[in-house]
Amino acid sequence: MSSIEEGYFTEETSADVVIGRNAKARDARLAEALAPLIRHLHAAVKEIEPTQEEWFSAIQFLTATGHTCTDWRQEFILLSDVMGISMLVDAINNRKPSGASESTVLGPFHLPDAPELPLGSDICLDQKGEPMVIRGRILGIDGQPVAGAKIDVWQANDEGFYDVQQKGIQPDFNLRGVFRTNAAGEYWFKGVKPKFYPIPQDGPVGTLLNALGRHPYRPAHLHYIVSAEGFQTLTTHIFDPDDPYINSDAVFGVKASLMARFQRIDDAAEQAANGYDRPFFKVVHDFVLAPAA
Amino acid sequence: MSSIEEGYFTEETSADVVIGRNAKARDARLAEALAPLIRHLHAAVKEIEPTQEEWFSAIQFLTATGHTCTDWRQEFILLSDVMGISMLVDAINNRKPSGASESTVLGPFHLPDAPELPLGSDICLDQKGEPMVIRGRILGIDGQPVAGAKIDVWQANDEGFYDVQQKGIQPDFNLRGVFRTNAAGEYWFKGVKPKFYPIPQDGPVGTLLNALGRHPYRPAHLHYIVSAEGFQTLTTHIFDPDDPYINSDAVFGVKASLMARFQRIDDAAEQAANGYDRPFFKVVHDFVLAPAA
Repeated sequence: MSSIEEGYFTEETSADVVIGRNAKARDARLAEALAPLIRHLHAAVKEIEPTQEEWFSAIQFLTATGHTCTDWRQEFILLSDVMGISMLVDAINNRKPSGASESTVLGPFHLPDAPELPLGSDICLDQKGEPMVIRGRILGIDGQPVAGAKIDVWQANDEGFYDVQQKGIQPDFNLRGVFRTNAAGEYWFKGVKPKFYPIPQDGPVGTLLNALGRHPYRPAHLHYIVSAEGFQTLTTHIFDPDDPYINSDAVFGVKASLMARFQRIDDAAEQAANGYDRPFFKVVHDFVLAPAA
Repeated sequence: MSSIEEGYFTEETSADVVIGRNAKARDARLAEALAPLIRHLHAAVKEIEPTQEEWFSAIQFLTATGHTCTDWRQEFILLSDVMGISMLVDAINNRKPSGASESTVLGPFHLPDAPELPLGSDICLDQKGEPMVIRGRILGIDGQPVAGAKIDVWQANDEGFYDVQQKGIQPDFNLRGVFRTNAAGEYWFKGVKPKFYPIPQDGPVGTLLNALGRHPYRPAHLHYIVSAEGFQTLTTHIFDPDDPYINSDAVFGVKASLMARFQRIDDAAEQAANGYDRPFFKVVHDFVLAPAA
């Protein structure tokens, strides 16, 4: 007859009992990562004291979130985004030395095969919206320009949609381009003044945000991935500080250091010098790359 | 021009910033419940320091778990079970006064419409396995018998399968029944000696358990829901203490107080007195109900 060991599951011992069960894991890192997660989840449940019905609501929410995921949509990433988990993981993996530009989330709309274009090209292929000229430099933390740095940019259009969200409406690769800095570390190109836009609202995460009294908007921004040999790759945005949602980004991507100035140019001579016969927006923004580890 | 408020998201402020965003929730209880969850999840992420690839593995695991859920299968409940969350929620919702029988998980195999049967009925409709007689009393914490208590029992067969897992192989409602205690608070019925069985192993949770070096087995048990007017309903199991998995239930359902004695009866006279001509198992187990709140 076997003896009954000490150490059954109780409210007090629950996390220790579950973690102890993983002591002989084949995947040691998995067990190491799960231990704090189990400990904190159990602590949260003890604080919340959910009813059985509330627990089942959580099960149903996770199930609906899974069922909303397709090859084209990732509702769990969206959940991670609106809970601040994505930005926290980004922050942990992108601690920068003093003076280097800060990172923010990649987001779901990057395409790996955007066309490489000459400096000065207009990435707005359909001429919709208010025109914008963006220029700046890529620098090291020593202030020296980085020549030949690769700048991969993408943005939503003036209505807040990316090309991949409006196939057949926007031209393919609209508002995307890859540029290389010149010998002085400079880049410049043309685009369109971006606008705030909502994250997808028609799934469980949208329902959750609504119940929490939260809006679904991301403030207007441009995406950048800046890479150069000898430097850490920088995935970031620049934001419009005048955006109505600048202090309440639905996915917590805003950092004070990522603000750019979107300056409206009404001067006819400057308009003409930039190839325009109407007002345009001018953005000047430098990025500082951290040295490779 | 709007001002940039203090209080952007950083590694240090992350949980406070996210929780603060829920301050105007329409569903106040939801926001109240999410606050500890957000705080503990962020703390866990900070302890784990996952790489971006590890974070994405977690996203993929949750997605696969969602995609495994159907009308007939609940992989998120299974995940909750193997992480000890289900038992913790059960414990929180079923704190019993001293002397009352303890609860354990309901499990996914209860049917609400099992037939009500006369005391002594055999719920094993196909006569497979080793026969078993179960008897006992339903008592209050004052030791007084509870007459007319409803006892809803169900169990897996000798191969470890419930009827609903073997439709067309086992008779419908095999090994299920509802009984009422007599005036002396007694119940008795016949069934089959239960056997350990695995939780579903062919989905993401099975893969997780394997990576963690954990087996998928639940030790042999019988399920009970005992209810009576004036008492708290008791959802519980009785377990076989000689089961090889009694100290490592995959879902943490075992409690020392839920052990029963499964006594093999070789005596021919006692076999005959119970209607058998071969060895059978005898289980005598009382349950003590807590008074209604």
